[in-house]
Amino acid sequence: MVTLAAIQQAKQKLAPYIFETPLIRLAGLDELLGCQVYVKAECMQKTNSFKIRGALNKMLSLPAEQLQNGVVAASSGNHGKGVAFAAKLLGIKATIVLPDTAPQIKVDGIRALDAEIVQCKLAERHIIAKKLSDQYGYTIIHPYDDYDIITGQGTAGLEIMAQLPAVDCVVVPIGGGGLIGGIATAVKSINPQARVIGAEPAVLSRYEKSRKAGERVLVEEKASLADALLTLQPGEKNFPIFQKYVDDVVGVKEEYLAGGVKTLLLEGKILAEPSSAIGIAAALQGSLRITKEDKVCFLVSGGNVSLSQLAKL
Amino acid sequence: MVTLAAIQQAKQKLAPYIFETPLIRLAGLDELLGCQVYVKAECMQKTNSFKIRGALNKMLSLPAEQLQNGVVAASSGNHGKGVAFAAKLLGIKATIVLPDTAPQIKVDGIRALDAEIVQCKLAERHIIAKKLSDQYGYTIIHPYDDYDIITGQGTAGLEIMAQLPAVDCVVVPIGGGGLIGGIATAVKSINPQARVIGAEPAVLSRYEKSRKAGERVLVEEKASLADALLTLQPGEKNFPIFQKYVDDVVGVKEEYLAGGVKTLLLEGKILAEPSSAIGIAAALQGSLRITKEDKVCFLVSGGNVSLSQLAKL
Repeated sequence: MVTLAAIQQAKQKLAPYIFETPLIRLAGLDELLGCQVYVKAECMQKTNSFKIRGALNKMLSLPAEQLQNGVVAASSGNHGKGVAFAAKLLGIKATIVLPDTAPQIKVDGIRALDAEIVQCKLAERHIIAKKLSDQYGYTIIHPYDDYDIITGQGTAGLEIMAQLPAVDCVVVPIGGGGLIGGIATAVKSINPQARVIGAEPAVLSRYEKSRKAGERVLVEEKASLADALLTLQPGEKNFPIFQKYVDDVVGVKEEYLAGGVKTLLLEGKILAEPSSAIGIAAALQGSLRITKEDKVCFLVSGGNVSLSQLAKL
Repeated sequence: MVTLAAIQQAKQKLAPYIFETPLIRLAGLDELLGCQVYVKAECMQKTNSFKIRGALNKMLSLPAEQLQNGVVAASSGNHGKGVAFAAKLLGIKATIVLPDTAPQIKVDGIRALDAEIVQCKLAERHIIAKKLSDQYGYTIIHPYDDYDIITGQGTAGLEIMAQLPAVDCVVVPIGGGGLIGGIATAVKSINPQARVIGAEPAVLSRYEKSRKAGERVLVEEKASLADALLTLQPGEKNFPIFQKYVDDVVGVKEEYLAGGVKTLLLEGKILAEPSSAIGIAAALQGSLRITKEDKVCFLVSGGNVSLSQLAKL
């Protein structure tokens, strides 16, 4: 279960190790996006993404003797970096299973934290993580389908509610659903009137389809610029939380994703990766039901993007 | 004269037209820069630089009949954009005299605000502005050597002191000295213990030389990556304020300027132009007398930089 009380406890537990990230008012984007724009800048978090919150919360909850055997994580990059950072902090071994397509900056960031890296096809990453776990006794640190992970990510939601109590709407990128599950639990528990909207790549609309079907739909693998949001099916533990708390989910077309990054960088002066600017992209696409008066907080989930990737956009 | 009371009045006057920019805690840079890092993000200001503060304060202080004749400003770009924005707001004509070397993004930004643009050699911009003033009756809006301009820029200092009352040190880029004069007046009037440090290109160390000489030294023209800080002599009205209030000035070598931009962008996730990241560059160069415990606010003065300029760094 994920509860407000558990998220509050996680916040205490994580406080010595992570940053309370800034919530930045970007008035210069108001006219363009059609609301009062605020950014929760997890791109400025330690490891440059929110993933450290869940990974560290999970690992701090494991018994010491289990931790000593090491951990393994399947990741598109940011979760792996969070796990690698937490492992280094705790003095244990981490193995990160990444898709062949992971951006180099993410691979390099994980390597710099002394984790072992295994690369494979995107669809095989969880199978390989499981194999390594069976073979070496590593504990699997799942990127989203785990209550401790979801609870850890929820601490970003607690911070938002403390930094901007009058927030009308929080827009959150969706991959597997760990981040939005934690944030929605925190936000809705504190203020049921605040809305939480998910943004996912339109080519991988697993949450929109699942919401309509009332069950977890598996979608076909597709390429997307949003390299951190490539999950093909909502998590088992994540989907019920989504159903309970999330007001809406919008699919963002590929052609808007680069626009989201560019707008945030060139107009807003904040650097985010394409997956993380997807909420801004959703607003540019005109898909968010928001008004000029609404205080909208865009969760900018990560900033692990290189100048050469930017140049390609 | 520039006084705290005048800056407070300017703040009231400007409030309907400009943004209170965010003061962002960038904990991720603490270790690298050797202090507790805060950024006053004037790159997120309307027109993407602080210059709108002074330009609009000056223009709002002019009699309506004088304004109707139009204004002219010599500028490296950001001041021109501020004047053009203010002129558009007030419904009057603006002519901006820019050096041939002004970055294209600044020229385009000014043109988009419907101002007339005249380009010339760097050293001639003030002479040409004076000629146009004589010929057409335009009022000159000086980029820094004017009490109303300095007072307007000082409103950024007021905001810093409200946003971070415990600030130990404010680091400010120096060109002509308009920004640091206003900020130092505000900061020191509120807390004389807080330090104010200027950062200028080492190749154009007019303030360091003038401080030693006790008078305004004219330095030789040199190229610098800091295209907004090319002034060759401290302003007449600016220098005494600098002498009264500024604790220190450091010269930043060219090779550190690009590093300042890169660090702020890739580690801090904030986009600034080279002139504006000069304080960060000064810290990287090891030239600031600051300690790990000091709360240091880096005034990031502007963000008018294009992706193609970035690529060259």
